[in-house]
Amino acid sequence: MANKTKKEPSREKKTDEKTIFVGNKPPVSYVLAILTEFNSGSNEVVIKARGRAITTAVDTAEITRNRFVTDAKVNDIKIGTDSINGENGRTINVSFIEIYLTTK
Amino acid sequence: MANKTKKEPSREKKTDEKTIFVGNKPPVSYVLAILTEFNSGSNEVVIKARGRAITTAVDTAEITRNRFVTDAKVNDIKIGTDSINGENGRTINVSFIEIYLTTK
Repeated sequence: MANKTKKEPSREKKTDEKTIFVGNKPPVSYVLAILTEFNSGSNEVVIKARGRAITTAVDTAEITRNRFVTDAKVNDIKIGTDSINGENGRTINVSFIEIYLTTK
Repeated sequence: MANKTKKEPSREKKTDEKTIFVGNKPPVSYVLAILTEFNSGSNEVVIKARGRAITTAVDTAEITRNRFVTDAKVNDIKIGTDSINGENGRTINVSFIEIYLTTK
């Protein structure tokens, strides 16, 4: 689950993909953030979520694609496990998802 | 979100991919179903879930991969929207996920 993309390396400047972190708010809040990102010139947005918010991330991507940016495509989806330091020094494993949405 | 795989078409007989539908039980229940499937000779398992169970599906895939079948790989992940007939004849849109796990 390396974060390196398979595309040609961008020379010096960062790629213009922007990450939207999805949490406990309703999906529409994040849809709005994605629309803002696309409207400001980005052509790739990464939707990230952990744990229970994974469902919200998928909802967010689907609502964006079906209702607002109909030419947006799901370019890639990654899943993985993050280790978080919990109480009493225990490590908690939590799943995450990354959804790569692109427009042309 | 067509269900056709890009692999070479199987001649006459169905591909041996088996689908595990994930619901409200804890992830370990579905991990067990996947292990049974792999042990009976399948080399591809599809984990499907809708709505809130999407998180459980990701957890199931991750637990299987990290703890039990370490050579299993996530071959593909698809997301999409299902329309369900709800009460009063209204249609409800619900997101789904399909995770394709393969072993060699």
